[in-house]
Amino acid sequence: MNKVAIIGVGHTKFGKLEDKNLLDLLCDASLQAIENSNTNDKDFDAVYVSCMLAETLNHMTAIASAVVDRIGLIPAAADHVKNGPASGGSAIKNAFYSITSGACDMVLVVGAEKMTHITTPGLITSAVATLTHHNAERVHGVSLPSLAGMLTRTYMEKYNVPKEWITSIAVKNHKNGMNNPYAHFQKEITLEKALASPIIADPLRLYDICPISDGGAAMVLCSAEIAKKFCDTPILITGVGQATDTHIVYEREDLTVLKALQICSKQAYSMAKKTPEDIDVCEAHDAFTILEAIQSEDLGFFKKGEGAKAAYEGLTEIGGVIPINPSGGLKARGHPLGATGVAQVVELVWQLRGEAGKRQIEGAETGITCNFGGFGNNILSILVERM
Amino acid sequence: MNKVAIIGVGHTKFGKLEDKNLLDLLCDASLQAIENSNTNDKDFDAVYVSCMLAETLNHMTAIASAVVDRIGLIPAAADHVKNGPASGGSAIKNAFYSITSGACDMVLVVGAEKMTHITTPGLITSAVATLTHHNAERVHGVSLPSLAGMLTRTYMEKYNVPKEWITSIAVKNHKNGMNNPYAHFQKEITLEKALASPIIADPLRLYDICPISDGGAAMVLCSAEIAKKFCDTPILITGVGQATDTHIVYEREDLTVLKALQICSKQAYSMAKKTPEDIDVCEAHDAFTILEAIQSEDLGFFKKGEGAKAAYEGLTEIGGVIPINPSGGLKARGHPLGATGVAQVVELVWQLRGEAGKRQIEGAETGITCNFGGFGNNILSILVERM
Repeated sequence: MNKVAIIGVGHTKFGKLEDKNLLDLLCDASLQAIENSNTNDKDFDAVYVSCMLAETLNHMTAIASAVVDRIGLIPAAADHVKNGPASGGSAIKNAFYSITSGACDMVLVVGAEKMTHITTPGLITSAVATLTHHNAERVHGVSLPSLAGMLTRTYMEKYNVPKEWITSIAVKNHKNGMNNPYAHFQKEITLEKALASPIIADPLRLYDICPISDGGAAMVLCSAEIAKKFCDTPILITGVGQATDTHIVYEREDLTVLKALQICSKQAYSMAKKTPEDIDVCEAHDAFTILEAIQSEDLGFFKKGEGAKAAYEGLTEIGGVIPINPSGGLKARGHPLGATGVAQVVELVWQLRGEAGKRQIEGAETGITCNFGGFGNNILSILVERM
Repeated sequence: MNKVAIIGVGHTKFGKLEDKNLLDLLCDASLQAIENSNTNDKDFDAVYVSCMLAETLNHMTAIASAVVDRIGLIPAAADHVKNGPASGGSAIKNAFYSITSGACDMVLVVGAEKMTHITTPGLITSAVATLTHHNAERVHGVSLPSLAGMLTRTYMEKYNVPKEWITSIAVKNHKNGMNNPYAHFQKEITLEKALASPIIADPLRLYDICPISDGGAAMVLCSAEIAKKFCDTPILITGVGQATDTHIVYEREDLTVLKALQICSKQAYSMAKKTPEDIDVCEAHDAFTILEAIQSEDLGFFKKGEGAKAAYEGLTEIGGVIPINPSGGLKARGHPLGATGVAQVVELVWQLRGEAGKRQIEGAETGITCNFGGFGNNILSILVERM
């Protein structure tokens, strides 16, 4: 299998970007990544675009071709990969295969979502809810916040966890986001304020939940053999895992276990010949605070039931034993659905290159992601290392 | 690069299938392909699902996970690949890479679309039109039939071609569809009747245009090394090409040249070390009759301007020099968007295995497809051979 390197990254501001449409976001991030990679237009064999709701929110179905055309990469192959909020991870995985197979040498991956122009109340929540099981969940009005509320309650009761341990994750991520110029929110919040914010899906409150954001993120991948021609500090993708769990959430043996994450992170660790102890930095999928707590367990950093406590005790802060979401995570960086999985790896690239500014984790050499699709039914984990 | 074999195929009836929803179609085709492959549930590493309009027409965004769950393939990786009416080709390409890379051994590809439940007039035409350029085409009311009408007129004038040569393609494809039990239409039409059918987009008439269909098609791919364990007659995928052209149709140098097809078919021929003369059977993308005429030129079978004449003279019939669309094509087999690219390769597998019944092309050993995405801005070509 050929080795794959990341030689350029791009990232737009995340937030409410009134003057940018979906194609602008995809192209802005792409052009940044290409400029950062020192490649040129002629080098690209393929483009993978990640976006979850382009049909519903943007009335567009040829976004991959549209990117290739607009940024001048014709005749590069163009595909749009969809996997809910894990679309970014899936796009990276397929781009990775296109290079490891030997079919492509140079590939652009870009993810984006344009959401904040939608003003109809509930439309986005209901569009996102199309990823739940159609007959057993969606038609009965199940939404993502309602599932996350149920999961939070179950976790608190099973492991005797006070709510403040869980909500402390939002406080940490807002603190990290302060130092990320691309983050949707760059302001600190206090635990007291978060615990007193409006209830959305009891026991989850407003500050336990990521915002609705616009934004794009991109990266240039190439075969590792040629990476040094373009870049002094290529970052290798050495592990990629993906696994599926039951679509219907109530069919899972234990709601507080993300079996798909256990399986896919094991695949990623095994492909890279690493263990959780080798990881210096992690970007997790904290669409809801509870998810980061549980993911930090199923990625192998903490025992079951101890993830929220670990966060509360500061073990996942920058400078802690395993820093999680130095970028600010979905909570503070924001969550433009199709961009998130790509942005997670972009943050790891900055960390491993030593370019993360005030949020830099000293000496970071190895990082891993959890990109969460569906409500845990389709998860990817990507492991990256310094070359 | 590992070699890839097709060891099982499945195909639902195409047509107006009132008692089947999208997930039924995906799962019915998948289960047929798995049964046909003699594999079992435990063997699958990944599933690639192709569908164009699941969000808009079916309110579903986790269809790949849903398939994996419902047919019992958990924890196989699940991705949804979108590329308009060429989604099927793109799904096959990425599944192919997942095996050639060495990452996967056994992969299911399934495509489907559920369309006929939509009764709002114009909704499907406008949903399909989301693949045109948003600002330069779609917002001005450009639709796919209008572009195809313009292309037909241009071709007729440039090459001095009478309309009956072009429409004869529909007559041939209906004749072939007579012998395809899975086809939407299994009845012959006469050239006189087709030429007198209602005008849709002058000079295109009703019988120049494919129907709106429900349906699914699937295949099991594995590394060629292990194919004979499961199947006596594996079919190899030996060439895969994909290319992008300008998104805006008026920006093309010559409207009657499908540059993306010229490039991607050259890639496929070159990967397989074949020439157009080596091809025994072709499945083309005749969403409109004019497309098959032009594709037969850009695939290298006829000179520019001679494709429609060749069809009229019978050269592309079963028994002709290069039979095109023995399945009945999109015109008679039907065109469930996400299923089409997969169904094209399924037909080639049946032809190469000698299982095509009354529409069998004697001694067929090599076949190629053209799967047309956008309005020619994103085309794939897949070349298959007997092992």
